[in-house]
Amino acid sequence: MEKKIIVLGTGLVGKAMAIDLAEQFDVTSVDFNEEALKPLSQQGIGTLALDFSNRELLTSTIQPFDLVVGAVPGFLGLQTVKTVIEAGKNMVDISFFPEDPFLLDDLAKKKNVTVVTDCGVAPGMGNIILGHHNQQMKIESYECLVGGLPMVREWPYEYKAVFSPIDVIEEYIRPARYVQNRTVIIREALSDAELIHFDGVGTLESWNSDGLRSLIKTMPNIPNMIEKTLRYPGCVEYLRVLRETGFFSHEEIEVKGVKIKPVDVTARLLFPKWKLKPGEEEFTVMRIRITGDENGKPKTYEYNLLDRTDLKSQTLSMARTTGYTCTAAVNLVINGVYHRKGISPPEYLGEQSSHFDFIVNYLKDRGVIYRIKQSQ
Amino acid sequence: MEKKIIVLGTGLVGKAMAIDLAEQFDVTSVDFNEEALKPLSQQGIGTLALDFSNRELLTSTIQPFDLVVGAVPGFLGLQTVKTVIEAGKNMVDISFFPEDPFLLDDLAKKKNVTVVTDCGVAPGMGNIILGHHNQQMKIESYECLVGGLPMVREWPYEYKAVFSPIDVIEEYIRPARYVQNRTVIIREALSDAELIHFDGVGTLESWNSDGLRSLIKTMPNIPNMIEKTLRYPGCVEYLRVLRETGFFSHEEIEVKGVKIKPVDVTARLLFPKWKLKPGEEEFTVMRIRITGDENGKPKTYEYNLLDRTDLKSQTLSMARTTGYTCTAAVNLVINGVYHRKGISPPEYLGEQSSHFDFIVNYLKDRGVIYRIKQSQ
Repeated sequence: MEKKIIVLGTGLVGKAMAIDLAEQFDVTSVDFNEEALKPLSQQGIGTLALDFSNRELLTSTIQPFDLVVGAVPGFLGLQTVKTVIEAGKNMVDISFFPEDPFLLDDLAKKKNVTVVTDCGVAPGMGNIILGHHNQQMKIESYECLVGGLPMVREWPYEYKAVFSPIDVIEEYIRPARYVQNRTVIIREALSDAELIHFDGVGTLESWNSDGLRSLIKTMPNIPNMIEKTLRYPGCVEYLRVLRETGFFSHEEIEVKGVKIKPVDVTARLLFPKWKLKPGEEEFTVMRIRITGDENGKPKTYEYNLLDRTDLKSQTLSMARTTGYTCTAAVNLVINGVYHRKGISPPEYLGEQSSHFDFIVNYLKDRGVIYRIKQSQ
Repeated sequence: MEKKIIVLGTGLVGKAMAIDLAEQFDVTSVDFNEEALKPLSQQGIGTLALDFSNRELLTSTIQPFDLVVGAVPGFLGLQTVKTVIEAGKNMVDISFFPEDPFLLDDLAKKKNVTVVTDCGVAPGMGNIILGHHNQQMKIESYECLVGGLPMVREWPYEYKAVFSPIDVIEEYIRPARYVQNRTVIIREALSDAELIHFDGVGTLESWNSDGLRSLIKTMPNIPNMIEKTLRYPGCVEYLRVLRETGFFSHEEIEVKGVKIKPVDVTARLLFPKWKLKPGEEEFTVMRIRITGDENGKPKTYEYNLLDRTDLKSQTLSMARTTGYTCTAAVNLVINGVYHRKGISPPEYLGEQSSHFDFIVNYLKDRGVIYRIKQSQ
């Protein structure tokens, strides 16, 4: 019998995942927004309108499925994953919720389920690559630079949000952590801006974002780790001005007798500007550098990803690079190939070479190609 | 008997004017904010709490006075001036209201009163200087660059608002007009940014603002006229980003069920940042260039003003340069020296050399000094 998968969320990534998984599995997509379900229904995918925040309803809804894919906005992430675990279901999640996923580790072990979190491109593929090399060498440093950008640059932000935009603003507020000489350094988001050249893209600007997440806990052996976000040069300065002025503040203020959070006004103004237009092309750029000692010799691995919107299938690059990493993991979990119980950040998936190779090839088959350079 | 003057508004400029006028006249200051009146009361100035928008009350209040000085926020300006004219009182005004003051010209003539509008530093002193030279020469071009800035630069705006801050934001929205080859050119505010060096100040940035106002109507003979605002370099870019994002919009939007104008939220966030701290120093910088033909020969006049906070009297430069231009005009009007009926923009005051000299000397006596360079 065909295995049954339920995908929670039909955002740009959730939709691409449902379509990809439907080639092999019996897939049902779920969203609170009925409109968003229609195009999936037309592609022969089962659809269901549901408010994720209703835990009882979610529990009963997922009961008939073999695996749950989580693609809900970040603020709903932890609660949704918890509900799925309590229902005794395996899950692969890309909601990128801000809380520590290991808070759910004991529960997941007790329920005997496998839950892979943060399984996108970054976090996600970066962790998988690092998990792989961490088994092969003594790593001295890990650096991941990553961004999703529109092809056409429109002043002032030259940016389009492919994820839930309120999650994007969170990235500009949440303090960023990196590891230097085995010490966790906490810096404000948008700090340490630096111009960097990328072949085929041009000059971009990198700055601190809180992208290491689980790696800070799971890789205590690596003395230096950093993740930075990439944007077109200049954007970071404008975001810093907005933050400094208070436009990202969650603190309620009173304006002409009305109480309001500035960040809600900002979100309302920015979202139409940050929305990709129909047919607008974007790309994902990522550069991962791992240096260390392999077989007693210094060694550097560099992974470069430059992926663009797939014009044929009209699938966004960010949906492809994020979504297909997740659906690769779904294959490993649903077929029992990866079966570690409890919470698995993606670095656990990369530990076994066969899993790592499977994911890399799964992505390659879908045109998401990591070019690897080795040097000494 | 000592002449009686009523000053409407006790902002930074209104307060400085009341104190200056009290040396020669019987002065009463009026404000809706009782707290703001206290320091004036302590200096022996008559005070009165009053809501300016109550026209009947305003009419009866100003009845015993020989002259009214208007220093209310711009949005209240036109209505206040109209009420004063209808009450048959002479007036000098610095509310810089957005509407055309000549709308009130017929009424003022009918009521046989003298009303000088826009009588600050810019608009104001620039107009007076231009009015003066326009009598002496055939002017080819008039250029006025002007700004009020804090001595200490604080990122991101490096700016402090000495006027009603909502009026400052208006300056960033209202289309700017300049005159080129006798044609009125309309450009968006904050456009044509240009770096310019000022001795004793350093590099500033100039951009289009709608500062010519009455001159467009009263000086049809001058083929080229422009006024630009000065800020520290970079500020204009941030203001453009805010405007582009919609933060200056007066259009109501719905945010989480609440209706709100983005500009009100922006004002609420910016005002604490734009407020001068106690004891904080600021300065006014202005450069006026008039070129043309005088007695058959090419001639250029350049007026330079660089005025700083008066630390002894703790009077802000913007209050001094704006306020004392106004109080000089008050002297001319209240003593019947300037008695043209109807609306007088300040260029009318400058037309007669004796009036021009009186104002320049009045300012000089108070330490506000225009340095004049002539060249051919």
